Amino acid sequence: MKAIVYRGPRDVRVEEVPDAIIEKPTDVLVRITATNICGSDLHMYEGRTDMEAGRILGHENLGEVIEVGAAVDRVKVGDMVCLPFNIGCGFCANCERGLSGYCLTANPGTAGAAYGFAGMGPYSGGQAELLRVPYGDYNCLVLPEDAKEKENDYVMLSDIFPTGYHATELAKVKPGDSVVIYGAGPVGLMAATSAFIKGASQVFVVDTHKDRLELAEKIGAIAIDDTEGKGVEKVLDLTGGQGADCGCECVGYQCCNMHGKEVPNLTMNNLVQTVKATGTIGVVGVFIPKDPGADDALAKEGKIAFDFGQFWFKGQRIATGQANVKAYNRSLGKMIHADKAKPSMIISHELSLDEAPKGYENFDKRKSGWTKVVLKPGK
Amino acid sequence: MKAIVYRGPRDVRVEEVPDAIIEKPTDVLVRITATNICGSDLHMYEGRTDMEAGRILGHENLGEVIEVGAAVDRVKVGDMVCLPFNIGCGFCANCERGLSGYCLTANPGTAGAAYGFAGMGPYSGGQAELLRVPYGDYNCLVLPEDAKEKENDYVMLSDIFPTGYHATELAKVKPGDSVVIYGAGPVGLMAATSAFIKGASQVFVVDTHKDRLELAEKIGAIAIDDTEGKGVEKVLDLTGGQGADCGCECVGYQCCNMHGKEVPNLTMNNLVQTVKATGTIGVVGVFIPKDPGADDALAKEGKIAFDFGQFWFKGQRIATGQANVKAYNRSLGKMIHADKAKPSMIISHELSLDEAPKGYENFDKRKSGWTKVVLKPGK
Amino acid sequence: MKAIVYRGPRDVRVEEVPDAIIEKPTDVLVRITATNICGSDLHMYEGRTDMEAGRILGHENLGEVIEVGAAVDRVKVGDMVCLPFNIGCGFCANCERGLSGYCLTANPGTAGAAYGFAGMGPYSGGQAELLRVPYGDYNCLVLPEDAKEKENDYVMLSDIFPTGYHATELAKVKPGDSVVIYGAGPVGLMAATSAFIKGASQVFVVDTHKDRLELAEKIGAIAIDDTEGKGVEKVLDLTGGQGADCGCECVGYQCCNMHGKEVPNLTMNNLVQTVKATGTIGVVGVFIPKDPGADDALAKEGKIAFDFGQFWFKGQRIATGQANVKAYNRSLGKMIHADKAKPSMIISHELSLDEAPKGYENFDKRKSGWTKVVLKPGK
Amino acid sequence: MKAIVYRGPRDVRVEEVPDAIIEKPTDVLVRITATNICGSDLHMYEGRTDMEAGRILGHENLGEVIEVGAAVDRVKVGDMVCLPFNIGCGFCANCERGLSGYCLTANPGTAGAAYGFAGMGPYSGGQAELLRVPYGDYNCLVLPEDAKEKENDYVMLSDIFPTGYHATELAKVKPGDSVVIYGAGPVGLMAATSAFIKGASQVFVVDTHKDRLELAEKIGAIAIDDTEGKGVEKVLDLTGGQGADCGCECVGYQCCNMHGKEVPNLTMNNLVQTVKATGTIGVVGVFIPKDPGADDALAKEGKIAFDFGQFWFKGQRIATGQANVKAYNRSLGKMIHADKAKPSMIISHELSLDEAPKGYENFDKRKSGWTKVVLKPGK
Repeated sequence: MKAIVYRGPRDVRVEEVPDAIIEKPTDVLVRITATNICGSDLHMYEGRTDMEAGRILGHENLGEVIEVGAAVDRVKVGDMVCLPFNIGCGFCANCERGLSGYCLTANPGTAGAAYGFAGMGPYSGGQAELLRVPYGDYNCLVLPEDAKEKENDYVMLSDIFPTGYHATELAKVKPGDSVVIYGAGPVGLMAATSAFIKGASQVFVVDTHKDRLELAEKIGAIAIDDTEGKGVEKVLDLTGGQGADCGCECVGYQCCNMHGKEVPNLTMNNLVQTVKATGTIGVVGVFIPKDPGADDALAKEGKIAFDFGQFWFKGQRIATGQANVKAYNRSLGKMIHADKAKPSMIISHELSLDEAPKGYENFDKRKSGWTKVVLKPGK
Repeated sequence: MKAIVYRGPRDVRVEEVPDAIIEKPTDVLVRITATNICGSDLHMYEGRTDMEAGRILGHENLGEVIEVGAAVDRVKVGDMVCLPFNIGCGFCANCERGLSGYCLTANPGTAGAAYGFAGMGPYSGGQAELLRVPYGDYNCLVLPEDAKEKENDYVMLSDIFPTGYHATELAKVKPGDSVVIYGAGPVGLMAATSAFIKGASQVFVVDTHKDRLELAEKIGAIAIDDTEGKGVEKVLDLTGGQGADCGCECVGYQCCNMHGKEVPNLTMNNLVQTVKATGTIGVVGVFIPKDPGADDALAKEGKIAFDFGQFWFKGQRIATGQANVKAYNRSLGKMIHADKAKPSMIISHELSLDEAPKGYENFDKRKSGWTKVVLKPGK
Repeated sequence: MKAIVYRGPRDVRVEEVPDAIIEKPTDVLVRITATNICGSDLHMYEGRTDMEAGRILGHENLGEVIEVGAAVDRVKVGDMVCLPFNIGCGFCANCERGLSGYCLTANPGTAGAAYGFAGMGPYSGGQAELLRVPYGDYNCLVLPEDAKEKENDYVMLSDIFPTGYHATELAKVKPGDSVVIYGAGPVGLMAATSAFIKGASQVFVVDTHKDRLELAEKIGAIAIDDTEGKGVEKVLDLTGGQGADCGCECVGYQCCNMHGKEVPNLTMNNLVQTVKATGTIGVVGVFIPKDPGADDALAKEGKIAFDFGQFWFKGQRIATGQANVKAYNRSLGKMIHADKAKPSMIISHELSLDEAPKGYENFDKRKSGWTKVVLKPGK
Repeated sequence: MKAIVYRGPRDVRVEEVPDAIIEKPTDVLVRITATNICGSDLHMYEGRTDMEAGRILGHENLGEVIEVGAAVDRVKVGDMVCLPFNIGCGFCANCERGLSGYCLTANPGTAGAAYGFAGMGPYSGGQAELLRVPYGDYNCLVLPEDAKEKENDYVMLSDIFPTGYHATELAKVKPGDSVVIYGAGPVGLMAATSAFIKGASQVFVVDTHKDRLELAEKIGAIAIDDTEGKGVEKVLDLTGGQGADCGCECVGYQCCNMHGKEVPNLTMNNLVQTVKATGTIGVVGVFIPKDPGADDALAKEGKIAFDFGQFWFKGQRIATGQANVKAYNRSLGKMIHADKAKPSMIISHELSLDEAPKGYENFDKRKSGWTKVVLKPGK
């Protein structure tokens, strides 16, 4: 089968590889029809992780079931399914509490597994024609009859929409709240969408890319252009000096300041300033335990110089981590089905597998207008 | 009246000052019968805050109501009352949600007010014969008929017991959980007590003071002596390498390492290591926005070098801040009344007001055996 | 001053009565500019309660502060304020936990007080030119600068909007949920509005009045006409036989079946059938402990023949009671301020005080088109 | 193998039946070493359900794994395991949210499956030498090294301990709360134990059987003898007329009054009276949708004459249903492992399989001293 293979920093290739197959009786085999390139694929693409050369990328996958293992009860051949990027077993101490992003079984020694991801187990990604889905009954979200028609919406249930939603869950967004979101990339935009779904009265989205800020405004958010470093001041002005009720971090450790320099503590310290006392900050932007490629000494060790004194004095809270996709994908799928959410609005490019390397290159450069790329292996 | 007055670093004196009086119709006047010296009084005592010379200290107060203002409905002369250290109005946006520690009315411009405390409003403390209690109907916890007999227990409802309990609330301790607590001072011991009240199956208390660790063991906790810096390793060994379910920080920014040097990020980074993935860390130890007296550059700005990468990767949460005492004092009072909690077990010394300066001196030196001092103004 | 006085069953009159005044230092005096007739006023109007003749009705009030007591700190003369129908003290064991609808102080012996309401304390209602507001700092919601312009929206914060919202809180409505609501009166319509604010994917509103069902459709709900008693069947059909995720009861004990006969257990037993296993039912429709005027023996004692076996077998939950208005009015006010909610859409008639008796008569007859009446004392 | 087979009302027999075997690749086969007779077995024993003759009873099971299916990953031969009475799949919409008692897969058409239970699917019970466990990786709780030594404690994790705990979860018991529990049978006693684990300050247990009330006192509860129908009055007296903070129903539809007559609404209406306004009532006693064998007309239809008016007026809540055992068995197991809970204290008789019919007979007669029977198939 054809697949997108990681060969080294900024080197991904379309290659012919052995077909994915059913390996265990609980597996499901899926022919992929839509698979996104994710911002976190770029961490691997840029060589900022220990991703092994030769592995297939892709953790935002949707497709049709073409074979099921002998122990699969629920999922049927022909079902259209969307796969959470995290792989859970369904029966460990974490999965049974709904923490499927921290599965203790699928990637022994670490809490959490994923398709085609550095440090998240041996699983191949879905930027390919076929994908093996472990623990298929647990991991497949079976889609309703409009699955094909709304494929570009439903594929967002694999990661980006639940991840944005997770930011608002972690931040405890409630009806009437004001919310400040750092980052107007796909995740930040989905966080803004989610905040409105939950009844937020005001949503501020802070970024330095004008094309992304325009998308934020389209959703109904107030765009805060931080190009000149005045984002904090603007948010405080708009919230009577108190700060917003809730905050979301949707950028991560590769956050750049207005001069293009990586400043890993920038968003978190700005959030402490722009969220009110007693408020909660949800962090879904990725931070990593070791970053040997970073510039400064703290960052190399995965540390940031954090305004802990201010944070404590304000009695704030931080909640972090990757989304437990299964906790949200059914509900958010119902919102898509009922035409109450349209996450495909963030897609800027729809490419074939063969065009994927070009997609990676442009998306990595944050080239204007390249917000989100969906690959269509079948086409 | 006689009162303990702050005169400068390590200089508190017993002085004659004007009597506290009813100033507003919602005030209540209390004759103090028990008032503790708190670990956070030492921050002021040591001159590490901007406490004004001439002010009366004391925020852990209990006594008898001797006069009530014209608008007081509930509290009656003769009532024995315990006063939360935080002063709330009862009607602002925070108080109405139970966040009485972040009152927006009592100390305009800041969220939160307290008796005799730097930066927490103009209120006099209760290490004195009389105390003016603002918003008396809201702030007085009226005690049951055993108030005098159990005075040394009930006085702990003013701060230390709810603060320890708050640590376990913030850390989301549930029945069956294992809990690691940094700090075996009064707050840490009350956190351990609270963890057991909530049904914890295992409680680890980490400290370097042997007398305090002995008290922890008396409560039923597993004492972890960190004198040689092996606390993290020990906790991991005892939790199968996973870390505890929940963590509590009960030390604060003046945390010292095994060599007696202040290392403000020590407890937080150790907690990230010794709490399991997806676990929550409750922080009631005090951290402050600016600490000009600190040794290193980060600490001066109230920053710590925090293992954010590891923290995020483990999907952990932190919740911080001072306890909203009113959220817990009724319930914890019922535990005392029903003989199910005996917080007076931490008291090592009962002194008269005249002996208070000696109490401050010894407590400040963490002199062995000086765990907790209660002052008895009436005696 | 002029006021609407209850004189007996179906007899309310416009009378000259002594002016409301400041009686206690914590009181606030309000000149009423908008005050609604509520469905629960009709229970009193019809003589189905023990309301005393001579009392002023009206618990949905908004107006301008014209005087404040000596102990009032926050509220100022000139403030436009909306008053929760329930009167709380702010400092009892219930108010301090946010249960202001069950205040233990304002109506000694009962949990809960209200303006102009049978069994809810001696307080006069606001269908009058002036209203005395007890515990003014706690009970007044100070409105923003658009208070006058959006008066007909903000007045709904006194009861009907928070009460509808409360139904969805009690029913635990979450994003993506389907919700079945019994009753398309003002409360049911506000419950539907609230369900959408919270991100419901589907809302069914069951009623027999066509004009009300049309309003439900305007909000975006699916109207279920129960005129022929087929409502249950229809909801089950539309939810794949499972029932909705959540249910709301917005009718109460005077529920009538399709033949116009009062059948007090009708809505509750239908809800048990039309809500899924493990679902929760929020009940804000009023049920009363004794109803001597009822037809059947059970109803006289305030009992209903409830399908408890089915309810238990499905593992459902019921949560009941009047809304704690203060728990929601700030947040919902922000939704009005941000133009995200427009509760005035339910108002059908705007009358002067002099026209109030006519308003009562028509509203009581559920005359077609008389959905909600707002009185304007100043006009 | 030898098994206890239901043959008809009050007729259970020890019979030789075909060995249980692995039927699906996800099955686990367990040699039962401990299996209890449950109060709900008596509903079947008495012929009050539609249990089919010929089926094996027993849903409270513990034993050793002797074989695992090809798709089983986690459970190993030789593991000592305790089985939740409810059978879940782990991947349906309910199981994935932790509602394993309402599995949509294991018993198609109904939410919920169990071993050896009327209406809960075709699964054989474990009062036998061998038991087939479906979805073994999901359903087996693997026990620690003290499994054999504390077998009589751990077997309680199958049902009775989590069910008692569930009552307190449903009732939202928090530290400091007072709790009133109706029923001093095994479930009521486990509810009392659980309430104390959660930090209840006072627990009242109401029953008419003196031997059971004595056990309640042993746990530390206040026994309320309702033999003369004065239980309500006594609880109100002991709670200052307010009622307890929380209530638990641990009796069910076959509740008898002091004259030995079945009065299905007795406990629920007493709970409404003895729980405070705004309090929550958790109902784990079984109520059934149809009860043709009942005396009165309402009961035949599964209805009760419920004090809904009083219930609503007090703003109370009810939560019901069988325990989702998996939600609690890990945590409660840790309490047993840490010697903080000893549920075996309720066992009155330890019998061989051959003695089971005698056990059923005496337990059914509520013969004094027959509190709880555990069968030991291996002996």
